[in-house]
This record gives sequence, C-alpha cells and structure tokens, in this order.
Amino acid sequence: MKTSSEMTDCAPAIPLLEFLTQARAIVDSELDRLLPAESLSPNNLHAAIRWSVFAGGKRFRPALLLAAGKTFGAPRESLLASACALEMIHTYSLVHDDLPAMDNDDLRRGRPTCHVRFGEATAILAGDALLTLAFKTIAGDEKLSATKRVVLLAEIARAAGTPGGMVAGQAHDLEAESRNIAPEELEKIHRLKTGALIIAAARAGAIIAEVSNTALNAVTEYAGQLGLLFQITDDLLDVTATAETIGKTPGKDARASKATYPALHGIEATREHLASTHAAACAALSRIDRPTELLRSIADFILEREA
Amino acid sequence: MKTSSEMTDCAPAIPLLEFLTQARAIVDSELDRLLPAESLSPNNLHAAIRWSVFAGGKRFRPALLLAAGKTFGAPRESLLASACALEMIHTYSLVHDDLPAMDNDDLRRGRPTCHVRFGEATAILAGDALLTLAFKTIAGDEKLSATKRVVLLAEIARAAGTPGGMVAGQAHDLEAESRNIAPEELEKIHRLKTGALIIAAARAGAIIAEVSNTALNAVTEYAGQLGLLFQITDDLLDVTATAETIGKTPGKDARASKATYPALHGIEATREHLASTHAAACAALSRIDRPTELLRSIADFILEREA
Repeated sequence: MKTSSEMTDCAPAIPLLEFLTQARAIVDSELDRLLPAESLSPNNLHAAIRWSVFAGGKRFRPALLLAAGKTFGAPRESLLASACALEMIHTYSLVHDDLPAMDNDDLRRGRPTCHVRFGEATAILAGDALLTLAFKTIAGDEKLSATKRVVLLAEIARAAGTPGGMVAGQAHDLEAESRNIAPEELEKIHRLKTGALIIAAARAGAIIAEVSNTALNAVTEYAGQLGLLFQITDDLLDVTATAETIGKTPGKDARASKATYPALHGIEATREHLASTHAAACAALSRIDRPTELLRSIADFILEREA
Repeated sequence: MKTSSEMTDCAPAIPLLEFLTQARAIVDSELDRLLPAESLSPNNLHAAIRWSVFAGGKRFRPALLLAAGKTFGAPRESLLASACALEMIHTYSLVHDDLPAMDNDDLRRGRPTCHVRFGEATAILAGDALLTLAFKTIAGDEKLSATKRVVLLAEIARAAGTPGGMVAGQAHDLEAESRNIAPEELEKIHRLKTGALIIAAARAGAIIAEVSNTALNAVTEYAGQLGLLFQITDDLLDVTATAETIGKTPGKDARASKATYPALHGIEATREHLASTHAAACAALSRIDRPTELLRSIADFILEREA
C-alpha cells in the first residue's frame, strides 16, 4: 500500500479530502502538545485558549502551509511548528474580532465565543497569549535553522501586523463600517485582513522548502488569489447559507451594513468574480516547474465550499 | 571631555540620571523610526499606537536592557532594537490592561488612555499591533546574528506569555481580584505580571553581550529582585502619592480591593520588605566579576522613586 506522500507525488488526481483530514489531525495533535495544559495555572486562561483553538476549525492556513511545503519537497516535520503558529495567530484574531467592542459575535462554529464563555478580560488575554505563543513556537523550532526561523518570523509578523497585514485590515474594516466604500477599497481590506496571512502560510511552506525566487513569486500570486477567493466565498455564504451550515448567524454582515462583495456587486457578479479569481490562482500555479495538483485542488475546494 | 561611556566605565559614582535621559532619548528616536507613521493608512490605528507609546513613559525596561548590555560591554547599536521591542510589549500590555473589561482606567500618565481617546476596538488592535511589531523588530534586527535573535525572541516571548510570563500574571491578577489571597500568591502574581519582562530585559542585554552562565544567573537574580522592588514601590505609591505626582488616580487599586503589598502587610512592613529586596538585588550584583555600579544605581533609583 502506498503512503499518502507517494500517492500525492504520483497520482494525477489528488485525494484532497484525505490530505486535509490528515493535515488537520497532525496539526491538532501538535497544537495540543504546544498549548499549555488546562491543568496548569492560570487554568481559566488556558481553558479559554483551548476552547478557542479546539473549536472545530478547518485548519485552512496550516493545511495550505503543509501543502505548499509538500509541493516543493519539504519534510513534514519541518513544517509543523510554523503551521501551528499560523493557526494560533488566526485563532487569536477570531477571539479579538468577536469581542463586544469589535464584531460582538456570540456564536462561532456553533459554540459560544470565547468572551461569552470565559468573560471579556480572559478573552482579551487568551488572544494576547496565543499571539505571543505563535512567535515563541517558531523561535524555538529546532527543526529549522536560526536563519530560516528569523525569515519566517519576520514574514509572519509582517502579515499579521500593520501597515501591511491583518491588524491593518481589521482597522480599515472598522473604519469602513460607518460609510460607503469603493470596490477597490473593499479588495484592499480583504487583502490585508484575510489575504496577508493566507499568503504568509503558502510562502512559509515554500520558504521552508528553500524554493527559487521565481517559484516563491508564483506561490505568492497563487495565494493572493486564493485569499480573495476565500473571502468572497465567505461573504457569499453569509448571504446564501443557513445558520446550521455555517455555524454562525447568517446575514450578520449585511445587517451591520458591512461592506461585502455581494452587497456591493450583487450575487451574480460575485459568482463571476469568483470564477476569474480561481482562474488567476491556477494561472499562477502553471508557472511552477513541479506538480501542483495539491495546491490546485485547494483552489477548487474553496471555490466550491459550502461552509 | 570624557564621553558618557568612558565615565560609566571608570567613575565609581554613575551619573544615572544622565544615563536614563540619554537612554530615553535614543530609545524614543528609534521607536519613532520603527513605528508606522501616522500619515500611513490606517491612520487612526497608527495614531493610537503612537499616542500610547509616546505618552511620557520612563522607558525603564529599555534602559535596564541597555544598562545590562553596557555593563557587559555590548555595543549600544546591538541593543537598541531589542530595547524598543520590550517597550512595545510593555505599552501593549498597558493598553490592554486599561480596557474597560480589564482595569477600566481612563487616565494614564495624566492623559486619556488609548481606548478613551480612540475607542475600544482601536485600542485592542493597537495593542495587538504593538505586540506583533515587537517580534518583527527583533526578527529583523540585522545587528544581531540569527542565532542570537531566536534566543532573544524565545526568551522575550516566554516572559510575555503564559504560563511563565506577563499574560499569565494578568490572568492570575484578574482571578485574585474577587477573593483574599495569600502573600506568596501575591508575590507570584507580581513575579509574572511585572517581574518576568523586567528579568527578560536584563537578561536580553546580557545575552546580547554573550556573558557566561554564572553572570547570566546573577543578572537574572538581580533583575528578579528589581522587578519585585518595582512592583512594591508601585503599590506603595498608589497608597501614598497624589494624583498629580503619579499621573493616575491614586488609591484605585485599594478601592478595587486589589491584592497589594500595603493592603496585605501594612505600610511599615512594606517598607522593610523593600529594603531587604534592594539588599538582595545588590548581593546578586556582587557575584558579577565586572563593575556593576550602573545596575546598582538603578536599584537605588527604584527604591527611592516618587513616581
């Protein structure tokens, strides 16, 4: 029987669901190892961290990092710590984003959000702790050379911060809630808020695999389109899905008169935009001198996702 | 005329105020260079970051890092980025600590706190951005080898996070607000909440200077006592000082029935504890095989501070 790695390298049709399931399992197991135990004091803080991290997330960013690394031949062990760090950063951003002063969300993935369950102060600290632990995890990753670790840390910190990263995107988004915004501005918000970390995930995998600049540029372009695809499908699901499917209150963005693709362009134009974004992601992959079915199938998967 | 550096190396009486003034000036100038400009979008976020960082802080942690590095002969340029990173982390912790869900402070250093001036959501994001930028700053510090950068990053992340650092201390503190706590527990909260980052500051300076393990242990012990000294004088000032002197509402901790040294032990016993803590800090310095007047004078300064 072939191992999963052999199948991915040889078979033209990638068993993506198997890859995602496996990625999720190894990332979850490593996160469990990296996060402080609930039995450790301060217990409430650690319980809040674990409540938020193990809330049934799809581990999309870690999977993308693992897929990019695998595409370019990096050993899985060398990718795992960075993959977990990205998930910690993603989770911290959700915990802070859900706070009453921000999006004020009570429900995420069908469960009470961190501040509803543990109180606002603990939720703020849980987010802070996760962000800190993400950087500690990469800094202490002995599978990678110190040089590679500082390159990854700088890359991920840039993508998570301001002016070119996620926090900047959230600040733009806040500011845009109270007024009409142009389509280009919306795309900029998406690029910063969601895209930057998705790009960092794909690039991190490629950097760990020590790819050429040409390949790194192609991966960056691919992941940029992927991030856009991800955000637009998210907005679309918010309009079209039911609470049961997406695990949160649908239509919430529209009610808060948040700028979204469907709100600005209508559902039909949004679907067309999705198709062209997907095509651009695939075009970028065609510039990579290796089999890229795994990355391609991730783009397909996001295009077709229903939750 | 001697340079400040020559004076420090030779003179038995260190001109501490001159050192602190100079440290503050170079740290402020470097922070100004490192932080995103207010003219850069998202402007409101960057204004909030700068409002919080340039709020008249004493730059105690950066000064301690610079002093430890100088004591062991590290060039000042090699210390500056790490010093600024520590101040960013300290500032983020104040911004989040002041939030309504945490200490709910309207005033800090005589000015409106970040969330009062810019709103809660922006204050949360400003703290997140500062924490992220702190790690980015060290990761990208080309004055240091990659190996040294990852050692510092791991050290500082440990001291800032949980279970052994600042965020853990804040979580303990939250939890202790609602009940009576034992003196040992209070000391543990102080050690985590304030001590860990102060220890990291002194150790970072020593690590950059590549000191021996013996010296690093002595610095760690010194800084641990210094952190305690810092916290106890802080608690004492809260009881004895006026709003004008300390720039915040005095007596606030007592009203919130927060566990403090004076509240648990009374003012007289607190003063005795201060003296013995100061003596322990000096005893640790005596184990260092170099002139340590600068570090000694910092301990004196904290013991005698009035604000």
